[in-house]
Amino acid sequence: MNLARIAERGTFDSLFLADGPQLWSNLAQRPAGALEPLTLLTALATATEHIGLIATASTSYNSPYNLARRFASLDIVSGGRAGWNIVTTAGAEAARNFGLDAEPAHAERYARAAEFLDVALKLWDSWEDDAVVADKAAGVWGDDAKIHPPRHRGTYFSVEGALNVPRTPQGYPLLVQAGSSEDGRAFAARYAEAVFTAQQTLAGAQAFYADLKSRTREAGRDPGHIKVLPGIVPVVGSTEAEALAAERELEDHIVHEHGVARLESLLHLEPGTLELDRELPADLPPESAIEGAKSRYTLVVELARSERLTVRRLIGRLGGGRGHLTFAGTPEQVADAIGTWFTQGAADGFNIMPAVLPSGLDAFVEHVVPVLRARGLLRTEYGPLQTLRERYGLPRPANQYTAAPALV
Amino acid sequence: MNLARIAERGTFDSLFLADGPQLWSNLAQRPAGALEPLTLLTALATATEHIGLIATASTSYNSPYNLARRFASLDIVSGGRAGWNIVTTAGAEAARNFGLDAEPAHAERYARAAEFLDVALKLWDSWEDDAVVADKAAGVWGDDAKIHPPRHRGTYFSVEGALNVPRTPQGYPLLVQAGSSEDGRAFAARYAEAVFTAQQTLAGAQAFYADLKSRTREAGRDPGHIKVLPGIVPVVGSTEAEALAAERELEDHIVHEHGVARLESLLHLEPGTLELDRELPADLPPESAIEGAKSRYTLVVELARSERLTVRRLIGRLGGGRGHLTFAGTPEQVADAIGTWFTQGAADGFNIMPAVLPSGLDAFVEHVVPVLRARGLLRTEYGPLQTLRERYGLPRPANQYTAAPALV
Repeated sequence: MNLARIAERGTFDSLFLADGPQLWSNLAQRPAGALEPLTLLTALATATEHIGLIATASTSYNSPYNLARRFASLDIVSGGRAGWNIVTTAGAEAARNFGLDAEPAHAERYARAAEFLDVALKLWDSWEDDAVVADKAAGVWGDDAKIHPPRHRGTYFSVEGALNVPRTPQGYPLLVQAGSSEDGRAFAARYAEAVFTAQQTLAGAQAFYADLKSRTREAGRDPGHIKVLPGIVPVVGSTEAEALAAERELEDHIVHEHGVARLESLLHLEPGTLELDRELPADLPPESAIEGAKSRYTLVVELARSERLTVRRLIGRLGGGRGHLTFAGTPEQVADAIGTWFTQGAADGFNIMPAVLPSGLDAFVEHVVPVLRARGLLRTEYGPLQTLRERYGLPRPANQYTAAPALV
Repeated sequence: MNLARIAERGTFDSLFLADGPQLWSNLAQRPAGALEPLTLLTALATATEHIGLIATASTSYNSPYNLARRFASLDIVSGGRAGWNIVTTAGAEAARNFGLDAEPAHAERYARAAEFLDVALKLWDSWEDDAVVADKAAGVWGDDAKIHPPRHRGTYFSVEGALNVPRTPQGYPLLVQAGSSEDGRAFAARYAEAVFTAQQTLAGAQAFYADLKSRTREAGRDPGHIKVLPGIVPVVGSTEAEALAAERELEDHIVHEHGVARLESLLHLEPGTLELDRELPADLPPESAIEGAKSRYTLVVELARSERLTVRRLIGRLGGGRGHLTFAGTPEQVADAIGTWFTQGAADGFNIMPAVLPSGLDAFVEHVVPVLRARGLLRTEYGPLQTLRERYGLPRPANQYTAAPALV
């Protein structure tokens, strides 16, 4: 609640909640109260007015009918502020909570995700925008001619009927995705309207940005309709020295034992493999052997190798082992970095991920936001009510059953 | 939102949303905006303070881990006001939205429901009440010794890990159930803390009440821990004549075509079988042949036969064909009926289901609630914040892993 209000004070576009449907066996990764994101964001919808609400939900451990309906409901309740961070959910711990013994293979998870999206898009479009009649006197709710049951029969799903929620303010939630692997990029080019990514260098971010835009064009979509949003971990100080000291202090405060465990999990290493004051082992497997977060794996390994970082320094650089860029500096320096990435073709926006919450977000809004506003890089107020998709500068999607009559 | 506020004005215990995960092919049963109930009630949680929030959700078309987590999240967000109306979801239309060609058999749906509840109860108890440590400095969130993964392997579900939400204000949501068939009553006796039921006569309601209390005792539970809540459709007038005229007017306003369709669906008849001004056909199948709402079927058929009602009158008596008792009278007469059922062993409370919303609820709160309060049958104010279970006069459930050490 507090975070949402701080973010609205900073006129942010949206608030994003990561998620996985399991309790991490690793205590360091176990938060004390991991409310289900759609529930929490629905509660926030009535307590906020402007901010977009992006919930993570898994295509591997949900059914399209229920999930499409829940996002449609949130979009209506929030007045068009719903977003879906689409994940396929790596890891055996989640799989074992849903009747499986091990996680499905990476490629299979993405194949299911693609079919899931196809079904969800049919469900969200199953009511044309003017299908609601709501003539109480006659007892007629909807116009049958404008309701299109998916009648989907595929590899992973069979879904016969139309959604029982009319088309929503945004048509459907803003579609967000964060996988940067080969499968992930292909999926993003086809479906995503915004992409979260972890990048450590301007050059790396530019390459990713260009690649994703080009893939989106090749997929037949407008490359302007996919927004690339690298994560940054800002550490703000009133002088550069103060910021660097704060960064160092933060590194010391990161409980290294937990950072190590998180890094071992990310690198698919047995617990106890890594040592704080040594570099990564030389014999790590190639990305192709990784079934989890492939691109994050490669990013971390390359960063460690290129700068010959110890495990301790690597954890610090990764903001506690999450893989996102930690940037320490004065408000002007942080704003410079943001401006550079934004104007140099590395980012359409940013996912601000302070290491300590809510104080880190508060500091960003207090000190960096005014500089960004003064430079014309951030709105000064929300203005009239808008949908999340409008704030992202994206058009409301046409209904597939009315946009192209040939498809009906 | 409006309904919730009216209900809070009437100091009601709770607000209940029925649901099915399908768009009815029958236009008469299709509401214009059927938001998913957990989403809608979560939004209402932040807009209300006292009222309980009972959401319908299906054990046939959800997975225990996700659903248990969502109810736990709502219970936390609402400060202990969550309730779950457990349904097994009859009908092929819902089944076909979830990969099945036809609905599972009645008995199989209940077998799955029982296993679903066993798993959900393990998940809700998987954190002991004091398992949260939340020592940020040490980075320790929970006490592993007080977290109990279900490690469940059953017929319908395999769920390995603990929930990722700590134990909630109520322990778990109030468990509500509405099936009155043989399977339904057995299930209720074992799990339910409140039971919605459709009853047309005092004698019938008393018999149901006594049967359910006795089954609950036989199941080894305190019969005071299951609350029986018949539905009533109040029609209030300032004189009896006015109320009866209002009831007649309401009958005329019920769009009979839709009432007929709803009744045909309830009786598992082909569309077009019933005629408004004739009685039910003589050759209806026995309850044992019905795979849907068995007890509702028998109730309606017996009512029609015993009073030799035409289809038109039957629909009127059933409040538009839903099966609940329509009671028309002055506020005092409605309060009399409520008082009689309550004191004569027919009800522990009522599910107030006006035919027209919100006006019917508004009239009940304006005119009947003051009479009930004057007679000491209803609280005059909410008083200190309480959980839904406390309002129902039920104890907070003990954790199965701490209540009986032998089970650990």
